[in-house]
Amino acid sequence: MANWKGLIREQLEKDREAAVQLLQQWVKSPSVQGEEQSIQQSIAELLGQMGLDVDLWVMEGEELVSHPYFVSPRTTFEGSPNVIGVWKGQGDGRSIILNGHVDVVPAGDLAQWDDDPFSGKVEDGKLYGRGATDMKGGNLSSLLAIQVLQKLGVQLKGDVIFQSVVEEESGGAGTLATIIRGYKADAALIPEPTNMKIFPKQQGSMWFRLTVKGRSAHGGTRYEGVSAIEKSMLVVQAIGQLEKERNDRLDDPLYAKLPIPIPINLGVIEGGKWPSSVADLVKLEGRMGVAPGEQMDDAKAEMAAALKKLAEVDPWFAEQPVELEWFGARWVPGAVELDHPLMDILQAQFEAVTGDRAIVEASPWGTDGGLLTALANTPAIVVGPGVTQVAHYPNEYIVLDEVFRCAEIFALTLLEWCGVAESVKE
Amino acid sequence: MANWKGLIREQLEKDREAAVQLLQQWVKSPSVQGEEQSIQQSIAELLGQMGLDVDLWVMEGEELVSHPYFVSPRTTFEGSPNVIGVWKGQGDGRSIILNGHVDVVPAGDLAQWDDDPFSGKVEDGKLYGRGATDMKGGNLSSLLAIQVLQKLGVQLKGDVIFQSVVEEESGGAGTLATIIRGYKADAALIPEPTNMKIFPKQQGSMWFRLTVKGRSAHGGTRYEGVSAIEKSMLVVQAIGQLEKERNDRLDDPLYAKLPIPIPINLGVIEGGKWPSSVADLVKLEGRMGVAPGEQMDDAKAEMAAALKKLAEVDPWFAEQPVELEWFGARWVPGAVELDHPLMDILQAQFEAVTGDRAIVEASPWGTDGGLLTALANTPAIVVGPGVTQVAHYPNEYIVLDEVFRCAEIFALTLLEWCGVAESVKE
Repeated sequence: MANWKGLIREQLEKDREAAVQLLQQWVKSPSVQGEEQSIQQSIAELLGQMGLDVDLWVMEGEELVSHPYFVSPRTTFEGSPNVIGVWKGQGDGRSIILNGHVDVVPAGDLAQWDDDPFSGKVEDGKLYGRGATDMKGGNLSSLLAIQVLQKLGVQLKGDVIFQSVVEEESGGAGTLATIIRGYKADAALIPEPTNMKIFPKQQGSMWFRLTVKGRSAHGGTRYEGVSAIEKSMLVVQAIGQLEKERNDRLDDPLYAKLPIPIPINLGVIEGGKWPSSVADLVKLEGRMGVAPGEQMDDAKAEMAAALKKLAEVDPWFAEQPVELEWFGARWVPGAVELDHPLMDILQAQFEAVTGDRAIVEASPWGTDGGLLTALANTPAIVVGPGVTQVAHYPNEYIVLDEVFRCAEIFALTLLEWCGVAESVKE
Repeated sequence: MANWKGLIREQLEKDREAAVQLLQQWVKSPSVQGEEQSIQQSIAELLGQMGLDVDLWVMEGEELVSHPYFVSPRTTFEGSPNVIGVWKGQGDGRSIILNGHVDVVPAGDLAQWDDDPFSGKVEDGKLYGRGATDMKGGNLSSLLAIQVLQKLGVQLKGDVIFQSVVEEESGGAGTLATIIRGYKADAALIPEPTNMKIFPKQQGSMWFRLTVKGRSAHGGTRYEGVSAIEKSMLVVQAIGQLEKERNDRLDDPLYAKLPIPIPINLGVIEGGKWPSSVADLVKLEGRMGVAPGEQMDDAKAEMAAALKKLAEVDPWFAEQPVELEWFGARWVPGAVELDHPLMDILQAQFEAVTGDRAIVEASPWGTDGGLLTALANTPAIVVGPGVTQVAHYPNEYIVLDEVFRCAEIFALTLLEWCGVAESVKE
């Protein structure tokens, strides 16, 4: 058997400059929602040059938008195609999906960036720009894993399905569309920024809106009214209590290091219209974490029950119950067995490449992996370069060495998972 | 001495129909902020016909807008003139200001009104429309008091200064302008809707804005951030505690019947931008009641101290203190000695007209009386027809009998306070 590790590392080194330029090109393409056409077109061309079967399409149709897992602020996707390239195997091997999203969150306040948010600047081994970490760096690792094997003359037995999807940041409609289109595999890797920790389980999440009611009155006689702001404090407390109960009973060792494994975050509050009036309405919007393996409907029911119990704390809530709505984004939780064969391979290759034992944890956020696992019967593991602390923030960057290290681990994983059919170097 | 009570009542009855039509005409004029020109013009004409010295002017100038007591969302007042009519006395008598505002708050949600908000409809002895109670009904009482004395051939010794001002609902710039223009008197009556309770003391109030800081993070790892929504709960508690302390030490018997004599109302809350992010900023806006006799600067300092003490409750506030701003509207508190001669006269005439003892309390809200007392050395007493429960609300109305009863009490009060110089009926 060839010294794959040495050969792969050598080849990656050889092609490093071109790879960095490709990542720069990707980051310079500001693929925020609705603006993914250009980068997807160029990725499709590249996949074609690599000899993959390329599928570029704009998702649409009733099956998509009326799907129970469909979540998006929009229903038409002009300017936002999905791209898939299939590297067909010779047969008799396990297939794998390498899934990554190409949409990035907006740059936000430009004043907080030291450079143009889409500069792609390289400095001290880091590449800067919105999307560098979340997750164009990881996408490059996947692409390089295929390229390096091709350059080494490898033919795999199983198919490798490279997916460059849209809409992950809005709830996963892009990956949902790939599933509806029929794509599935024996397993999937998603190189979201985990700092190369291996996440067989991913927290799901969903957004909710609470409407807390009061009764208006003049502020000078505020005791004649009921303040929705004061009542909303009780609601915040009840949500905190619910979060505690849900986390206390979670004994998954993968979550042992997280202070609050499945948080309930209240992110937005808004109520009242006039300083001199008692506020008669407060809206709270938040994100509820859903445990891997938990049914989303069960989590919803638990939230509804906690709000109903508020009537025991304050009879006002019996008269004017808090209204609960589920709206906007939603990410399905995902879970893969810890002894899944791909887990073994990944951990072995991580150790082979880095000399360290891989850290296995559960993700504190949702990914498209939940959809792949739940709907496409494709167990998905999330592992990739970069740290979440810089994702969605000004001056986002990725350490380039990490991208190549991930590519090396992925290439070795593909060899083992899909199996080698033939190789000129063997 | 003539039977003034009988004569006044008889004359008011005689003129009742015309008076109701005048109030209808006033209420039909939708004199919201910026739209007072028409009603003020017609009042000025009427005062002129009554033989008063009329002063109609649009307030302006540096002295006004840079005055420390100037509060208004605007600095030019085209379309919003003040009107004053002076009924000159023969001399050697006490003067009096009859002050009332002609600006009304907006109609609000039209769907909540049974009729056009400016209908002036009369039904079952009530006159309906925005401003009927707050405070065109009271203004009519003042005007009728002068008219009825004139019709009875009375000449008073002291001046009666009828003031129809703008901007009361926005903080009193209209009355401030009358003071800058030189108007003052030995005392003032303001017929705001007190349900004919006599308010020698009026609560002041001022608006504040609190900025509570947090630190952003992703909702899935919310423990890496600091929620400004959670921190604002502590702020709401601290404000509640401050309100309690301020009211506990208030032993004014005039406030004995009010559950919270000088409330601090938090009327507006707004913070956070994204359900999946930890909110890094919450703004709270409210109204702080100021006790009669209390210095506004002392109340401000007390609020600042209470917010500073939050650092003892939670060290976060030592690092990120709550910001305090005083903005927008402000009403100066007012206080007249309980044994002020005008108090004696008012109570006596109330009892003479109604057969009941007058109720003397302190107002739970500010009026322009604070400015008159503090800046023009004109002790102001607030007493008028109508109830605050309908002011600022849909289907606002006033009971017409109350308007005429107030006019009767005011006419008798003018006779005693200003002194009768001559009368054809005497």
